Amino acid sequence: MEPKWQFLAFGVVLTVSTVSLSFVAGMYFQQQDAKKRLNKIIEKDPYAYYVSPKFDEVFGLFEDQEHHTHRMAKIMKYGFPGLDDLRLYSDFVLSYDRRNRVAHWVCEHLEIDQLRTDRISRRNRTYQPDMRVPSNFRSELTDYRRSGFDRGHLAAAGNHHLELEHCQDTFFLTNVAPQIGEGFNRGAWRNLETYVRNLVHRFGSVYVCTGPLYKPHQKDGGKFGVEYEMIGLNMVAVPTHFFKVIMVESILPMGKPYMEGYVLPNAEIPKDLTLRSFLCDIREIEHYAGLKFFDGIRRSAIFGSNYSSESQVFRDFR
Amino acid sequence: MEPKWQFLAFGVVLTVSTVSLSFVAGMYFQQQDAKKRLNKIIEKDPYAYYVSPKFDEVFGLFEDQEHHTHRMAKIMKYGFPGLDDLRLYSDFVLSYDRRNRVAHWVCEHLEIDQLRTDRISRRNRTYQPDMRVPSNFRSELTDYRRSGFDRGHLAAAGNHHLELEHCQDTFFLTNVAPQIGEGFNRGAWRNLETYVRNLVHRFGSVYVCTGPLYKPHQKDGGKFGVEYEMIGLNMVAVPTHFFKVIMVESILPMGKPYMEGYVLPNAEIPKDLTLRSFLCDIREIEHYAGLKFFDGIRRSAIFGSNYSSESQVFRDFR
Repeated sequence: MEPKWQFLAFGVVLTVSTVSLSFVAGMYFQQQDAKKRLNKIIEKDPYAYYVSPKFDEVFGLFEDQEHHTHRMAKIMKYGFPGLDDLRLYSDFVLSYDRRNRVAHWVCEHLEIDQLRTDRISRRNRTYQPDMRVPSNFRSELTDYRRSGFDRGHLAAAGNHHLELEHCQDTFFLTNVAPQIGEGFNRGAWRNLETYVRNLVHRFGSVYVCTGPLYKPHQKDGGKFGVEYEMIGLNMVAVPTHFFKVIMVESILPMGKPYMEGYVLPNAEIPKDLTLRSFLCDIREIEHYAGLKFFDGIRRSAIFGSNYSSESQVFRDFR
Repeated sequence: MEPKWQFLAFGVVLTVSTVSLSFVAGMYFQQQDAKKRLNKIIEKDPYAYYVSPKFDEVFGLFEDQEHHTHRMAKIMKYGFPGLDDLRLYSDFVLSYDRRNRVAHWVCEHLEIDQLRTDRISRRNRTYQPDMRVPSNFRSELTDYRRSGFDRGHLAAAGNHHLELEHCQDTFFLTNVAPQIGEGFNRGAWRNLETYVRNLVHRFGSVYVCTGPLYKPHQKDGGKFGVEYEMIGLNMVAVPTHFFKVIMVESILPMGKPYMEGYVLPNAEIPKDLTLRSFLCDIREIEHYAGLKFFDGIRRSAIFGSNYSSESQVFRDFR
């Protein structure tokens, strides 16, 4: 009965080959299809094009050298001059303004666990330059020394106590800006940070976006202009104001989130002023910062974002 | 012989099913594998995460709702405040500074075809606001009116004559900045644009990156500061300087590219000054602009990028 065994063996080999071949063909087809779709996105979306070199790893199986031939790929062949220098730290995300050597914005998501101050103390934490920033754009400890300004946190150290690394990360100079010490960093600004933590304790989940403003003011003669100081050899900008935009997720099922924004002048703020006097229309902050906050949800789905005008204090401090 | 036919039919069906199943299994396997790799990239790279919502279309075959659970996805759940507002026009790429209502940088790739002025005339072209920019960040024609400043092109209109749309696109106000007219926009700056076109005629392929500077200067008392005017209701910044960084691709096989950078003060520039006096160390421009030019090639592979210091003119004009 030998011939029959041969037939069977042949059949098995044939089946296995067919299955394998079909399997590989399926993989190949799917990869080509996904690649085609991806390339269509890359062609239209400059951000996708910016990330596209990373995608070589995604389709690792059937390699073929991909050459983009569309217009953008040609124009941007030698790289992007800049793209807001996005930086991911262990517990916050930051966009670094390489021109001003201060962050554009810092985003945090706060929950109660992170606030437990018994876990990690901020003592022994030290300020340090972030060596991952190229030296041409980096701020150093010497820039702040004898400048007369505090090294003010944007993402507050007290918000990040879940792990040692989280707290240490807030001490990178990328998360720091020159702030007036007495009456600001050690006054109203600290009160605002405490207020945010109180919100976390009461509502459980709070999103915060913090950053500097370089606000135009009217000069003699009626013209408007922007004016701010630069400190240190590396030219670190001293912002005229700082903002915090806060979004509180509702604890009610189907509840709407609540959003509010504060703008504080980088100046000695009288103690008798309450935090409420720094409340500000969020669109106004967006206008001066060039940012859009919590754009992922429609504004109409949010409480509290529509103050009719800027607060008194925002107007009075230049 | 009916049973034999049945066997055959059964065999055919079995084979087809096996093949199809294997094919689909291969597709599924490949998709899951690619997705896993993609998610790994997204988790580590904030830019990839920013683009990730677009990728839903890439893997269209076996849908499953993807939920990112890593830290960044939680922090950035409600969107990014800003990411340098990258804009792709028909013949140039631009990053828009929403805070200053002027571009951060504009990149062009120039070849001889684009310069043929007989094809399209710039007459009948009109300046217009780019309505795709949200009103809160948009500059309008009224901002420039009676401001005393010219509407100066960043990507020059004369560089984009291949198609009607290319030329028209340069007239969007996103590609425009307030420039001193007499002696700058109609003087040295125009000469620089002509010089770039001459390079294209001689060498065939030239990359140009153009943008504004807000350069710090020393004030009375020795402190450094940044100071610039804002015009119009929408607060459009008047840059203190403009830069152009030029990279000429070599026409020799294996030839090195040549790179040089110019910085011109936004002021009336005496006619007797040659363009060479505005040559500037590229690292210096990068420092003040917060940008990195043509980062895709190593600096050591470029001629001409290492001037020892800033040019005389860059220093003298404040």
